[in-house]
Amino acid sequence: MKWIAPESSQVFSENGKLLNANGRYQKHFRDLEGLYEDGESFSRMLPEWSEKVVYQVEDHRASEQPGDLIYGTTVMMPGKVGNEFFMTRGHQHQKAECAETYFGLSGEGILLLESPDGDVEVREIRAGIMVYVPPYWIHRSVNTGNTDLVFLFNYPSDAGQDYGIIERNRGMRKRVVTDGTNGWELKDNEDSVKFS
Amino acid sequence: MKWIAPESSQVFSENGKLLNANGRYQKHFRDLEGLYEDGESFSRMLPEWSEKVVYQVEDHRASEQPGDLIYGTTVMMPGKVGNEFFMTRGHQHQKAECAETYFGLSGEGILLLESPDGDVEVREIRAGIMVYVPPYWIHRSVNTGNTDLVFLFNYPSDAGQDYGIIERNRGMRKRVVTDGTNGWELKDNEDSVKFS
Repeated sequence: MKWIAPESSQVFSENGKLLNANGRYQKHFRDLEGLYEDGESFSRMLPEWSEKVVYQVEDHRASEQPGDLIYGTTVMMPGKVGNEFFMTRGHQHQKAECAETYFGLSGEGILLLESPDGDVEVREIRAGIMVYVPPYWIHRSVNTGNTDLVFLFNYPSDAGQDYGIIERNRGMRKRVVTDGTNGWELKDNEDSVKFS
Repeated sequence: MKWIAPESSQVFSENGKLLNANGRYQKHFRDLEGLYEDGESFSRMLPEWSEKVVYQVEDHRASEQPGDLIYGTTVMMPGKVGNEFFMTRGHQHQKAECAETYFGLSGEGILLLESPDGDVEVREIRAGIMVYVPPYWIHRSVNTGNTDLVFLFNYPSDAGQDYGIIERNRGMRKRVVTDGTNGWELKDNEDSVKFS
């Protein structure tokens, strides 16, 4: 058989385990220096947190051909640096015209989205919610709950990730912080490159 | 905002309802004439079943641009025509290099896959199972259970569907029939165009 083989992956909603994954990467707390507003809190947490896996991705990649799809799971630990919730680095697709979908499996979080013009949008992720990330939008997921946030994703195999845009823009325009009770709110990221 | 807007859709696992869908289509029993081996049983069922919706798709389509994605839900009624389980017509993508993913939400079924060379593969669909349809494979879903089969799907916005391939091939190479107990088995489709 010269064709790419079909695959089937059992997905575990509570811990994000993906059977038959052929890729995985982990982000440790130490990898996220500079991401959070409160650098002092980050430094204070570092000795204890340095080696902890704050999020992990498992995926299935068949090819990088246009038209093909990558699927996988992300598991994000709950936590805060200062008053700012744990989050992924965020990215735009390298082929920026590529969309992505997220489907919540467990936990509570949000997807923070930013258009190339700096429009900001937020969509909740939790069990049973599908979130659509349109072409061109920078996106980052944030765990705003007290348990692991677990979701499925799908995106085109040739999309790629441009993480550099977050550095070039000095973050996203908004930060996701606790509202002092059990919820979250957005605040301006004072460091962000201002858009015209 | 000139960018395509993000979207968020609550998905109901039991009945496949998709909030914020902007597309829907329904297949009635009467539309499926010629699909099943047992034409006599089909004709006998027709008066009672003609107007019943045997499967329904709800989806969200933002654009048809390459890189964009369509997501949605399918709900399939349980049932049989003779000893053959209710199924979708089946298709290859018009842009055959496009993949698709299916994620089971409730019920029990299978995805029947056939490569352009006539290789046949089967993958189970049930809650928590992700099935990957590789580029070029013809695929059809089959409800092998006693309840609605409900799943999510994702595929590239420019993929399109070629339903004609099923007619040109006179069906898929295998049919999915009851094994006489509670399970299913494959049998040859005697009508199918033979592959070299």
